[in-house]
Amino acid sequence: MDDASNLAPEVRETAQRIADMEIRGAATIADAAATALGAQAAASDATTPSAFRAELDAAARTLHDTRPTAVSLPNALRYVLNDIEGDTVAELRQSVQRRVATFRDDLDDAQERLGRIGAGRFTDGDTVLTHCHSTDAMACLEAAVEAGTDLEAVVKETRPRNQGHITARRLRELDVPVTLIVDNAAHQFLDDVDHLLCGADSIAADGSVVNKIGTAGLAVSARDRGVPVVVAAQSIKLHPKTLTGAAVKIEQRAAEEVLDEEARADIGDIDVANPAFDVTPPRHVDAIVTEHGQFPPESVVVLMRELFGERVEEPWSDSGPSLNDG
Amino acid sequence: MDDASNLAPEVRETAQRIADMEIRGAATIADAAATALGAQAAASDATTPSAFRAELDAAARTLHDTRPTAVSLPNALRYVLNDIEGDTVAELRQSVQRRVATFRDDLDDAQERLGRIGAGRFTDGDTVLTHCHSTDAMACLEAAVEAGTDLEAVVKETRPRNQGHITARRLRELDVPVTLIVDNAAHQFLDDVDHLLCGADSIAADGSVVNKIGTAGLAVSARDRGVPVVVAAQSIKLHPKTLTGAAVKIEQRAAEEVLDEEARADIGDIDVANPAFDVTPPRHVDAIVTEHGQFPPESVVVLMRELFGERVEEPWSDSGPSLNDG
Amino acid sequence: MDDASNLAPEVRETAQRIADMEIRGAATIADAAATALGAQAAASDATTPSAFRAELDAAARTLHDTRPTAVSLPNALRYVLNDIEGDTVAELRQSVQRRVATFRDDLDDAQERLGRIGAGRFTDGDTVLTHCHSTDAMACLEAAVEAGTDLEAVVKETRPRNQGHITARRLRELDVPVTLIVDNAAHQFLDDVDHLLCGADSIAADGSVVNKIGTAGLAVSARDRGVPVVVAAQSIKLHPKTLTGAAVKIEQRAAEEVLDEEARADIGDIDVANPAFDVTPPRHVDAIVTEHGQFPPESVVVLMRELFGERVEEPWSDSGPSLNDG
Amino acid sequence: MDDASNLAPEVRETAQRIADMEIRGAATIADAAATALGAQAAASDATTPSAFRAELDAAARTLHDTRPTAVSLPNALRYVLNDIEGDTVAELRQSVQRRVATFRDDLDDAQERLGRIGAGRFTDGDTVLTHCHSTDAMACLEAAVEAGTDLEAVVKETRPRNQGHITARRLRELDVPVTLIVDNAAHQFLDDVDHLLCGADSIAADGSVVNKIGTAGLAVSARDRGVPVVVAAQSIKLHPKTLTGAAVKIEQRAAEEVLDEEARADIGDIDVANPAFDVTPPRHVDAIVTEHGQFPPESVVVLMRELFGERVEEPWSDSGPSLNDG
Amino acid sequence: MDDASNLAPEVRETAQRIADMEIRGAATIADAAATALGAQAAASDATTPSAFRAELDAAARTLHDTRPTAVSLPNALRYVLNDIEGDTVAELRQSVQRRVATFRDDLDDAQERLGRIGAGRFTDGDTVLTHCHSTDAMACLEAAVEAGTDLEAVVKETRPRNQGHITARRLRELDVPVTLIVDNAAHQFLDDVDHLLCGADSIAADGSVVNKIGTAGLAVSARDRGVPVVVAAQSIKLHPKTLTGAAVKIEQRAAEEVLDEEARADIGDIDVANPAFDVTPPRHVDAIVTEHGQFPPESVVVLMRELFGERVEEPWSDSGPSLNDG
Amino acid sequence: MDDASNLAPEVRETAQRIADMEIRGAATIADAAATALGAQAAASDATTPSAFRAELDAAARTLHDTRPTAVSLPNALRYVLNDIEGDTVAELRQSVQRRVATFRDDLDDAQERLGRIGAGRFTDGDTVLTHCHSTDAMACLEAAVEAGTDLEAVVKETRPRNQGHITARRLRELDVPVTLIVDNAAHQFLDDVDHLLCGADSIAADGSVVNKIGTAGLAVSARDRGVPVVVAAQSIKLHPKTLTGAAVKIEQRAAEEVLDEEARADIGDIDVANPAFDVTPPRHVDAIVTEHGQFPPESVVVLMRELFGERVEEPWSDSGPSLNDG
Repeated sequence: MDDASNLAPEVRETAQRIADMEIRGAATIADAAATALGAQAAASDATTPSAFRAELDAAARTLHDTRPTAVSLPNALRYVLNDIEGDTVAELRQSVQRRVATFRDDLDDAQERLGRIGAGRFTDGDTVLTHCHSTDAMACLEAAVEAGTDLEAVVKETRPRNQGHITARRLRELDVPVTLIVDNAAHQFLDDVDHLLCGADSIAADGSVVNKIGTAGLAVSARDRGVPVVVAAQSIKLHPKTLTGAAVKIEQRAAEEVLDEEARADIGDIDVANPAFDVTPPRHVDAIVTEHGQFPPESVVVLMRELFGERVEEPWSDSGPSLNDG
Repeated sequence: MDDASNLAPEVRETAQRIADMEIRGAATIADAAATALGAQAAASDATTPSAFRAELDAAARTLHDTRPTAVSLPNALRYVLNDIEGDTVAELRQSVQRRVATFRDDLDDAQERLGRIGAGRFTDGDTVLTHCHSTDAMACLEAAVEAGTDLEAVVKETRPRNQGHITARRLRELDVPVTLIVDNAAHQFLDDVDHLLCGADSIAADGSVVNKIGTAGLAVSARDRGVPVVVAAQSIKLHPKTLTGAAVKIEQRAAEEVLDEEARADIGDIDVANPAFDVTPPRHVDAIVTEHGQFPPESVVVLMRELFGERVEEPWSDSGPSLNDG
Repeated sequence: MDDASNLAPEVRETAQRIADMEIRGAATIADAAATALGAQAAASDATTPSAFRAELDAAARTLHDTRPTAVSLPNALRYVLNDIEGDTVAELRQSVQRRVATFRDDLDDAQERLGRIGAGRFTDGDTVLTHCHSTDAMACLEAAVEAGTDLEAVVKETRPRNQGHITARRLRELDVPVTLIVDNAAHQFLDDVDHLLCGADSIAADGSVVNKIGTAGLAVSARDRGVPVVVAAQSIKLHPKTLTGAAVKIEQRAAEEVLDEEARADIGDIDVANPAFDVTPPRHVDAIVTEHGQFPPESVVVLMRELFGERVEEPWSDSGPSLNDG
Repeated sequence: MDDASNLAPEVRETAQRIADMEIRGAATIADAAATALGAQAAASDATTPSAFRAELDAAARTLHDTRPTAVSLPNALRYVLNDIEGDTVAELRQSVQRRVATFRDDLDDAQERLGRIGAGRFTDGDTVLTHCHSTDAMACLEAAVEAGTDLEAVVKETRPRNQGHITARRLRELDVPVTLIVDNAAHQFLDDVDHLLCGADSIAADGSVVNKIGTAGLAVSARDRGVPVVVAAQSIKLHPKTLTGAAVKIEQRAAEEVLDEEARADIGDIDVANPAFDVTPPRHVDAIVTEHGQFPPESVVVLMRELFGERVEEPWSDSGPSLNDG
Repeated sequence: MDDASNLAPEVRETAQRIADMEIRGAATIADAAATALGAQAAASDATTPSAFRAELDAAARTLHDTRPTAVSLPNALRYVLNDIEGDTVAELRQSVQRRVATFRDDLDDAQERLGRIGAGRFTDGDTVLTHCHSTDAMACLEAAVEAGTDLEAVVKETRPRNQGHITARRLRELDVPVTLIVDNAAHQFLDDVDHLLCGADSIAADGSVVNKIGTAGLAVSARDRGVPVVVAAQSIKLHPKTLTGAAVKIEQRAAEEVLDEEARADIGDIDVANPAFDVTPPRHVDAIVTEHGQFPPESVVVLMRELFGERVEEPWSDSGPSLNDG
Repeated sequence: MDDASNLAPEVRETAQRIADMEIRGAATIADAAATALGAQAAASDATTPSAFRAELDAAARTLHDTRPTAVSLPNALRYVLNDIEGDTVAELRQSVQRRVATFRDDLDDAQERLGRIGAGRFTDGDTVLTHCHSTDAMACLEAAVEAGTDLEAVVKETRPRNQGHITARRLRELDVPVTLIVDNAAHQFLDDVDHLLCGADSIAADGSVVNKIGTAGLAVSARDRGVPVVVAAQSIKLHPKTLTGAAVKIEQRAAEEVLDEEARADIGDIDVANPAFDVTPPRHVDAIVTEHGQFPPESVVVLMRELFGERVEEPWSDSGPSLNDG
């Protein structure tokens, strides 16, 4: 349907590099996609506003289809394209470029701003429990340490991929004393910790937090033990598609992560389930820390509509919400 | 204080074999200890009731001190000695031997009776979630399968020692379809299972269940999701010392189980905590299945007092409650 | 297996009248069954203790098989037979007759004693919410009114059979002001009532209350609104079979009770589910009022074992627990 | 106070038809009221902005007073009048007509958009529990069936007026397998269903849902059993008057719906309470599905202020919030 | 009805001294009452068993009526009289004297045994929150300090009578560091404490704890924050009358404790409510520590029936349960 | 950094009077601060927009530093300065003066509007429980009484400063019947009241309510007993600094308020903790009543951003959030 013949070379190239996983990570992908839309606007020789818009939609679709499950990618496209205004091609071009610039500027210092906000929750002597590894959550801890706050950490190893080891190493580099535990031991340590801090793979319109498997159960225990649950997530993790009510499809990862060949041979023919994420309902979360401030999870839908608009049936995408662990 | 010079050879030998871990497993240890007390009674040449009792206390102490953290060992001694009656040595001897015989008979078919009782909770088409490996819990599943009940199982691997693999293999041998998951995924699977079944390392007077680390958090989630929590435990797992209010000391296991040398070298100098057990409060448990029937956890203290009496400050022991994972 | 040739005529006759529903109602059945066992003991010409016991087991089986789902029937048999003692036929006969006499005496004033105990929970000005119709619950209200307590009642109609109408009429006869509501309105009235009072069709070893469908949901709401939930049930409603872990099978009643022919013709081909009972877990019940006092639901297992013993695999019965609404 | 002499004939006629119940149903009433305001604006020969505004207020009051308890009627008036702008009569007239057009356009496809959004929550194999009959809730189920999703339904009959029969028939026409139950049985079926879906008669500023009696208790049970509660409601069901803190007054319906004459004669002189609605607090609701997306109930106040403004003391109305079941 | 003419002088004297408050405190009253019954048995010149029993009942009634609201007084009478056995006056006399001796022996070391049991719950470094002043609770803390456990305490002042000041002073004498707070601050300190420890004025058959006003609300908060609630109470605090379902009547204390004359003059004519106690339901209590061991609150009814029997309608008392703060 | 040399005399004078506590009370301080900014704008002889803005920032800092813990002071500054627009000094001056006027107008009738909104929650016959003394909460009660609503009140004395006495006196003047209770008795009275109404010292971005110590625990109990918790707070009590995640620092008040010298001498050397406020999480609050309507606590962040903007790192302030009880 889209006319792809007028795609700017930067769009094609960026799309290729995202598809090849050369460009990866939520923020990096979002930055590249917005930049490519700017390039398309600059390069366009469309003569009517509608032709100009069609070219941008075609560019957006090309970029989007490289990796439809990366939540930050459609958000970048949505942010840039949902609010452009102008009666002439020139005005529209300028509008696109302003949106691209704003988006990239915001993105640039988003993690740092988020970190300063999250750090505000910690005080001297606090112990923080972490689950999985999240650069947004790390930004909060780093900002707190930089601000001179004296912290300790209890780090869940986070089976099956042990991302807790990354968090443990990074915290050691910051001279934060670390206690590493198996996931099974986390409930017991809730009496010893002051905060549960984790990131999010995505956040839905109803305030549910999609995050690494194990988060939802841990949050139930934290509520039972009176420990506040804080989720650190830049706004590009918000999932506007869920405004339409669609549940996020959750990826199953390889059975080999759970059971290696030797063990399987020993045990015999069984199924292995290895879901990448689970969904924590808003009533078990105390705060979502974004670069725009911290929000109760039930209010995050307001930020979502503010940034990305209400109508999320874009001309450049028809897939439902899904998520994988790239 | 005890006079050990009159110990029967069977007592010395049994004590040695328990100490050497030749005799191991809760029921086997209990059986051997009771038998040894019977041998002591038979062999005694005490001429007064008080001398006879002193000899038995000495035997009990010798046996008890070999492994004070094995909860079934003091229970065997307590069961035999707490209720003996008689005005003469002959009557006392006979009384001991009756208690030994009753205890061993009960022990003999305890797991089978427990299994039949637990099996009663399952019906065709049920899916059971298991945590760790427990022969008492397995007895319930085996009895259900033998009775023709059609079951499926979701098996948590149970880091760090992966005892779930044993359960998975055993269930495969029974032709029960098994889905193995990492511990982190358990909360999510609670919507798909009908029962959470686990064993217990020990049960306290307040109905708390001491079991493999990870049970307490899972039980909170199960309550939140409406899944009944069933604990299978023979009565020799009851911990009468806790009647005195003492908390069970929980063993820390080796850090190497959590983090191997290579990973540690990579991460740097961090602590590892590796507690063997945790404590689930009675309000998160639906039923405790014993060979004497199933009980709400809040009532198990009644069975405890019935079997082992109220006063638990025995002449042959002065240690507090503790537990290790042997 | 049982030798039925020596059955006393009273046993045959009683069995027939129970089967014909001439004898009905939990207490009436229990009384008749115990009396018949006494007649069997009196009539027996057995010459050995074991022959005498076999005759009684045969009588018990005959009585039991007439109506295996009436929970009071096996309880009567169990109470009489579980604890008989004696070395001779004469001693055994006397023992049976003593048990029969005690059981009937206790039964005789059980509802009245229960009523006085339950009445103690009410004070002047209280409003009581009722569900279904229960003579045990009514006994509490009657005793309170007799004692001069000033009560009001909110009565659920209790679809589909509207037993609430019986309760409403009976309360009117006692001059208790009644407000009748549809079942849907009950949650809203919880802010206006001081007690939720209902009976039980049966009570399980784990303290669960099996009662008319609708009880379990109402109890969740009552806990949420801070209204105490009181269950009135004579001890013959205890279900010792559940000590073995078996779940009570719940009867489905006729679809016609929910949807009459005209409505069905109008709607078309749909399923109708019409379960007679549901199961309320002990954590949503505040007290179970019996003729032996009031108990927290978690402790009722103690009374169950005291009255009916621990081993419930009787020679005269091999069926699992089930329940119907007769 | 209002000068009614300048009312357009369309306003008088529409008011009459609403009063006569010729125009009924939330959306139909709203559409007619907005259209009538547009006619008033077109017909006005006011010469000053303030005279023009006074005429419109008078028209609004005339329309509003026909049926002050229909929540969609004041919302239509509020939407059109709260945001009109202009310095001249001509500008104001144009502004009114733009607001009317937007409102009617949005209304036109609101239920369809809402249906598509709600349908997103269901996946193949899901079973949905319904309460009462709601065209908004039906729109979600219809959209899901149209999208090819394979659903089953458990339908509560919803005493006393059995609106569940309408839902059952409509679902049968869609070939959705239906199980009809009495209201008392709903708690038990919560273990078998994946969603609780209902409509709303109104939604308050604090996120409370006013709906057919029985909803509040069912939502408590659903939370206890882990079943998500979804409320489908177009934005014309929002009740901005509640921004002022006023509680919605709830209609009592006729006693005859609960107890027919024959039953009453039989029972004697008792009260019957028959409230039409109850109020479910936001903490027991998971999502409110509107045509603007789905919202956590705690955020719906934002949509309310966006659509209808903050100040709700309109010149054309002075009544408090109330609600009846028309 | 009772024939008081044969009362032993010790009975009259003891009754007088209890009435005059010369004998006061739960344990002292109980000890004196039991001793007086023993004196009556010794002095009796009854010639038939029934005359002997009537004399003892008369003595019991005389003692009981001096102070019917002191819960330990009827318990002492009940313990001694409920279980006496014998076919002759001599046997009955001996039986009474044995019961008296056992009761006094048990009473003698009850608080010390209770203290050792409660102390078992504390470990080095724990902080304990106390409410009101209780010698049973103090016994636990004293035993822990004696055993070398390193504790800190947060002490609620406990308005209106500031009994927390007594606890604070006593703890200072034990060198336990104390932080005194107003009652309003207790919720906030729950994050800093490891245990909530209080006594009980009485414990009901349903496991409810009647204690100084403020306990019930504090226990709700403690459950919310994950702090275990421990109640220390000797078994003479159990209230067997509540087996009959009767609620404990709660004394209102003088308004002057809340508002002195000056403040009242200043404020004007208002009511003051000053209830002495409140009732904490068993689900908010973790353990009841008695001299017979620690019990879940739901099991304490078993101990109650064991010590005091099931039938609590004694010939020497007809009052319902009540309680005052003497 | 700021150039203070151009400060208008009104700014200096206002600052001095705030510092001297001549100007006190949240609304009075806010009004004075906004007026002073208006004076600065009028007096400015700046010739460039940036010089003008620098002057205003200097004035803001001067005012702010007089009392950085009064939450209404920075809000007034923030409201006026965050949204000024203009390309010339003249335009900027006009913009400031418009903001000042709007702010003062809104402030002027804020408490009255809030009162009318809060009054809407009460109906005839309701009993309201109050904690501490709050003029915003009183405004709701006064408006209800003025509107003819028939109320009763239960008033907590609110140790240690007994502000409840002020509320009691004020309610007496309104002829509202008052029952005064000690704080410990509040949980028990929750069954007798229909609303818990209190004010707030501040409200955080996550919907947490900072209020007089004792609020948080009372709200847990209220949720447990089904009593709605309503917080009355003008929007100047919102604390935008908490958008940055910073926790509000809570003042400790003098130990002498808790323990006078005599009592301290008697008890010995103990610590006294006397925190002024505590923090109630949003999940225990039902509604926050402001002059802009009532909000679920989770949505109040939206109003906060609307009024005060998202970026709260103002040039005139670098302190974190704190609060004292002035």
